Amino acid sequence: MRNLKLTIAYDGSDFHGFQTQRGSGLRTVQQELAEAWQRLTGENAQIVGAGRTDTGVHASGQVVNVRTASTAIPDDRVAHALNAVLADDLTVVKCEHVPNSFHARFDALSKMYEYSIYNDTFPSPLHRRYAYFVRGRLNVDAMDQAAGRLVGRHDFAAFSGNNRTVHSTVRTVMMCSVDRSGPLITLRVEADGFLYHMVRTIVGSLLCVAKGERRVAWISEALNSGDRAQAGPTAPPHGLVLRWVRYPSGSDSIAGNTP
Amino acid sequence: MRNLKLTIAYDGSDFHGFQTQRGSGLRTVQQELAEAWQRLTGENAQIVGAGRTDTGVHASGQVVNVRTASTAIPDDRVAHALNAVLADDLTVVKCEHVPNSFHARFDALSKMYEYSIYNDTFPSPLHRRYAYFVRGRLNVDAMDQAAGRLVGRHDFAAFSGNNRTVHSTVRTVMMCSVDRSGPLITLRVEADGFLYHMVRTIVGSLLCVAKGERRVAWISEALNSGDRAQAGPTAPPHGLVLRWVRYPSGSDSIAGNTP
Repeated sequence: MRNLKLTIAYDGSDFHGFQTQRGSGLRTVQQELAEAWQRLTGENAQIVGAGRTDTGVHASGQVVNVRTASTAIPDDRVAHALNAVLADDLTVVKCEHVPNSFHARFDALSKMYEYSIYNDTFPSPLHRRYAYFVRGRLNVDAMDQAAGRLVGRHDFAAFSGNNRTVHSTVRTVMMCSVDRSGPLITLRVEADGFLYHMVRTIVGSLLCVAKGERRVAWISEALNSGDRAQAGPTAPPHGLVLRWVRYPSGSDSIAGNTP
Repeated sequence: MRNLKLTIAYDGSDFHGFQTQRGSGLRTVQQELAEAWQRLTGENAQIVGAGRTDTGVHASGQVVNVRTASTAIPDDRVAHALNAVLADDLTVVKCEHVPNSFHARFDALSKMYEYSIYNDTFPSPLHRRYAYFVRGRLNVDAMDQAAGRLVGRHDFAAFSGNNRTVHSTVRTVMMCSVDRSGPLITLRVEADGFLYHMVRTIVGSLLCVAKGERRVAWISEALNSGDRAQAGPTAPPHGLVLRWVRYPSGSDSIAGNTP
């Protein structure tokens, strides 16, 4: 039995999210990886992901693990072999042989997401697929201050679309900051776990502050309320990218192993 | 009579280039702008572009001018009105009222193109539309040195796919440099004019140097030969973006008028 840790990247535009929805016939990342694996090895392996991403959300450093009895493909050929059969919007960027105990979801210490906003008078055709267009002046300093108020261990119920499937809505945010480079505004948020729609609700709420509709302190009030109705709207999925997943070993899935 | 200078941006992926090919039924930037203008004003205006871009080549700061007798739309509403009828892969980012003598092509002092290469072990789904994937180690220092040898006034016949339609193949390159940021390598080249496939042939040639197949000095030999067969292959179009066009007035079409 081998356990393989795969770091994968995908353009979420044409996927109905990460997780396979049995019998739905919808295209998902998990399903396409499982099918590619079966095509190569004949084996019906389970693909365990570090986390789900919603329809339209992208990843440059998602992590999955595959436990396999197949010896058809040596470790150092797995990524090449899978990429040869996967579509070009889903790529395996790294394959590592890990202990059998490794579990992509349970062992994850934290994940980092980036959300991109294109802020200008008119939208940019070259950014429209991977950044949310917002017209008009945005106060990025206020946005960054509000973002900073979310750092720490909090109950994020107010920033989650649906909490019915989780035991607890308490999460620890290690980093939450916003900066601007020309017309592009980027939110970076690292946490030990994310609730459903959490980053997108944070973005929607920070935009209320950035537009001057709300004060910086309001974000703390919304957080403390525990009430989804007190936070801002959910920003669209296409600006969101799962950048990396951190594990105890130190083998972070930071994609882009620059030669 | 009004003369309007429009700065436009487009994702070239689904266009058969800038220039209208009469009767072809192919989708072009010029044709869609002319149709949008006609739909808004009823006027069959001529759209003059600063330069042609090939099928698949993008722009963030292409410039066109439109001479119009129509008073249907005030200057400050032209961009909004056109964007309301244009598809989302073609956007007017600026509209300026300019003297009747202004001609987008004849008055252009220089243009700047950027070419992006994604250099890593595996391609990136999130960069695949706007960067050319090249696997393996590339020597960016050598690439940048070779690029520097193209700066100046030279006969660029060796770097042009087809010279039948031009009087002269002499052009002045003001800037030609390459740098790397993570897996992304970017060539920036500014010239007073570009020959057919010139930037893409420069990129293909610089990649021969970057891969160690050719020495830095070879680029000068290829240039001096005046023979297309002596230069490298033509790189694909999707990594190329027309960034801006410079005019005497100082009103460069550098897109992204950050609020």
